[in-house]
Amino acid sequence: MINKGVLAVVSGFSGAGKGTLMKALLERYDNYALSISATTRSPRPGEADGREYFFVSRERFEEMIKAGQLIEYARYVENYYGTPREYVINQMDAGKDVILEIEIQGALKIKSQFPQALLLFVMPPSAAELRERLTSRGTETAEVIKNRLKRALEEAEGIENYDYILINDKVEDCVRQMHQIIQDHHSRTCNRLEFIENMRTELHQISKR
Amino acid sequence: MINKGVLAVVSGFSGAGKGTLMKALLERYDNYALSISATTRSPRPGEADGREYFFVSRERFEEMIKAGQLIEYARYVENYYGTPREYVINQMDAGKDVILEIEIQGALKIKSQFPQALLLFVMPPSAAELRERLTSRGTETAEVIKNRLKRALEEAEGIENYDYILINDKVEDCVRQMHQIIQDHHSRTCNRLEFIENMRTELHQISKR
Repeated sequence: MINKGVLAVVSGFSGAGKGTLMKALLERYDNYALSISATTRSPRPGEADGREYFFVSRERFEEMIKAGQLIEYARYVENYYGTPREYVINQMDAGKDVILEIEIQGALKIKSQFPQALLLFVMPPSAAELRERLTSRGTETAEVIKNRLKRALEEAEGIENYDYILINDKVEDCVRQMHQIIQDHHSRTCNRLEFIENMRTELHQISKR
Repeated sequence: MINKGVLAVVSGFSGAGKGTLMKALLERYDNYALSISATTRSPRPGEADGREYFFVSRERFEEMIKAGQLIEYARYVENYYGTPREYVINQMDAGKDVILEIEIQGALKIKSQFPQALLLFVMPPSAAELRERLTSRGTETAEVIKNRLKRALEEAEGIENYDYILINDKVEDCVRQMHQIIQDHHSRTCNRLEFIENMRTELHQISKR
């Protein structure tokens, strides 16, 4: 049996704590590979090519689109963002579970190409808690916070397409649960088809003797 | 949020170790309720009404069928076997996760009535191991073992309808995984619909202020 990695897509409201969760997941367990997006936007201070993003020119990005080298991509304002196919496939083939942090439209595109992908949505325990978290950052204006909450409301529209809703109350608990769900995904029937087929062949041979 | 229990259906080849797994699961964790079947067959020595089975007359069983009191039922040889609806519903309402040990036709009937039910299939690590386990019981003739293996092959036909394939290599590991998968099932989107709806309402109110 080949132990290929699984593909897990993580989405969630801004302020739900996705960033902290991802960081904790990658620090704590070593079987994960975080997919790195390609983008045409310029690096910000402190960002490195191949770490936060693959920074590419618009021409290169459009070539990648044409060559089918991106699993999904989107354009925000003036810039492209996309998920390079090669990295995802290579890591999964090497047995790594690949994590893709992406918003809902991208998640649905992934699901249509990788039906066996696992879609996780992270939510705060309540809307009041979400506002509290956004407010306590102290960096956003009331207007920005209001827009984030409206955005959350829009994002909440497609949630039924996700497999699991993770409620991020305590980070420790949520990371453990996320890890558990991703690991158990290896036992999903869609990821056991080869095992089932081998079992059938073997049973067939053995029951004939 | 109401914490209702989930319904988990466990099937598996004869010899895969289902019985041992169920026993360990119920002993180790206290949030489970094992559904008890109703049957028209006579109690065997050591069996108690309401423990192994609810022993009922054929007339009573047929009344239960007509009154819709069984989630599923089947007839083997001369006897009826079925799952009483009331027990399952009451236990779930009380927050218990209900386990139903049943074969594939019954499992599919359950799924059609409870689409949010979790279907688990237990397999031995290999067909050779299955034969080994059946042989080492020392109680079955070669003919019986051969028939069991053929039966397993038939059962293997519908496996794709199950959500997870659990490989019972070491009982300890398999019980832990079964518990984990059932507990995580509470976070499946289909079991979070009320939470999602509440979140939407709350977000709507809060983003208007």
